[in-house]
Amino acid sequence: MFTNTTSVTVQFGDCDPAGIVYYPNYFRMFDNATGALLSAALGMNKRQWLAHYDIAGIPMVDTGAQFFMPASFGDVLEIRSEITELGRSSFSLRHTIMRETNVGVEACEKRVWTRRDETGSIRSAPLPDDLRKRLSE
Amino acid sequence: MFTNTTSVTVQFGDCDPAGIVYYPNYFRMFDNATGALLSAALGMNKRQWLAHYDIAGIPMVDTGAQFFMPASFGDVLEIRSEITELGRSSFSLRHTIMRETNVGVEACEKRVWTRRDETGSIRSAPLPDDLRKRLSE
Amino acid sequence: MFTNTTSVTVQFGDCDPAGIVYYPNYFRMFDNATGALLSAALGMNKRQWLAHYDIAGIPMVDTGAQFFMPASFGDVLEIRSEITELGRSSFSLRHTIMRETNVGVEACEKRVWTRRDETGSIRSAPLPDDLRKRLSE
Amino acid sequence: MFTNTTSVTVQFGDCDPAGIVYYPNYFRMFDNATGALLSAALGMNKRQWLAHYDIAGIPMVDTGAQFFMPASFGDVLEIRSEITELGRSSFSLRHTIMRETNVGVEACEKRVWTRRDETGSIRSAPLPDDLRKRLSE
Repeated sequence: MFTNTTSVTVQFGDCDPAGIVYYPNYFRMFDNATGALLSAALGMNKRQWLAHYDIAGIPMVDTGAQFFMPASFGDVLEIRSEITELGRSSFSLRHTIMRETNVGVEACEKRVWTRRDETGSIRSAPLPDDLRKRLSE
Repeated sequence: MFTNTTSVTVQFGDCDPAGIVYYPNYFRMFDNATGALLSAALGMNKRQWLAHYDIAGIPMVDTGAQFFMPASFGDVLEIRSEITELGRSSFSLRHTIMRETNVGVEACEKRVWTRRDETGSIRSAPLPDDLRKRLSE
Repeated sequence: MFTNTTSVTVQFGDCDPAGIVYYPNYFRMFDNATGALLSAALGMNKRQWLAHYDIAGIPMVDTGAQFFMPASFGDVLEIRSEITELGRSSFSLRHTIMRETNVGVEACEKRVWTRRDETGSIRSAPLPDDLRKRLSE
Repeated sequence: MFTNTTSVTVQFGDCDPAGIVYYPNYFRMFDNATGALLSAALGMNKRQWLAHYDIAGIPMVDTGAQFFMPASFGDVLEIRSEITELGRSSFSLRHTIMRETNVGVEACEKRVWTRRDETGSIRSAPLPDDLRKRLSE
């Protein structure tokens, strides 16, 4: 399945009064990493693929994370992202955050491919064939 | 087990270009809700109970969330938080976000009670008896 | 000119490793406060007044803030917001954050009333008469 | 005076329902840029120079920004940061955000070099000579 690796340097403002990454910010990193994986798969940035496929977005339906090791500002984190499942209109990923050779955080997530219907509501839509093919490689 | 309910009005800046709550912000709401539950149980605000028990914080070790219904700015969300398990030095909660009578998000989390050791490292520490007693009610 | 006061309790996650409010978060508070002032003036929430006037938003064009006193989690801040100027398609406000009887932060800002043109670009548009009247009271 | 340039790619989650960078997030970028300038000047990351000089941080005392052009996710922004003034215990900077050849945002800020006194309160402290020398180059 398709994989992609990104890197992020933890910033002062990502951390909380305990001096470690405020855990909701890991989900920002994961959201960015999922966007980056699709961008790498499609050769377009997120704004471009949202427009290209005319979709409303890829909202999260289910996510979980385990935190093994805190990180602090100045730490360089590597985020390895991998597609783990392709459904009809959904797809799942696993993200692993490494700090040097240690696993800091592991997360999984399930997203839905969505489009707006005539009333403006967000509805799931089938994954496009070319995207499915690319993500299954 | 101890329960607590808080309320939050979704703000414009909590939402993403799809016009709905950017999902990492739900984890901010959950973190605030967990802090509020402990504050309600202890009759002190978080700064006070961190100091009172001389702890480094209550870092997240495991969390998961399912998203059933998007919310947008102006929506008033009710967050029902409930202790689900009390370990030796950890505790677990479930958060349910309601919008009117609908469940928007359901989440669970496991936290560790931590103290700094002589070297400044963060270590788990046993839950204080008075807190355990209060949370088990 | 129209004034409005809101209140916010500083959360753990609003603070940085120095234990005080991470200053960019004050601008979130100000943005919320400006939205709340317009909502109070118009008797509609922000989502409703964006739709009612069919506008693209009220982007910031100029803002400044002076920080007199740090705040930390648990602090209850009062934000007094006041319209200071009404232009053709812009308006200005002053926000004052009080902690008990002390001024913590003072900020000013200038916003533009904007609409999307046929090409989807964001353009300034004249303030509606009813809003202007209400804000000048 | 010392200058430094950093680059940031706007993320989906940095943007608001209007599809443009939520303006408080620019201040996160500026805070990161100021940290990066000091890190470049000192050859240490922020965690290291906070520890090296045993300071409490460099809290903001005054900042202002003018917004000339909105940016959206996928945009690559260049942030040019420049020391504009060196006081006894304070220093000022100007940040200019460029998108290609256009100025998107211009900001200025004044920071204080602070240390904790015996009571734990944050107090201004004189800029170290080596830092002053380096920043004045």
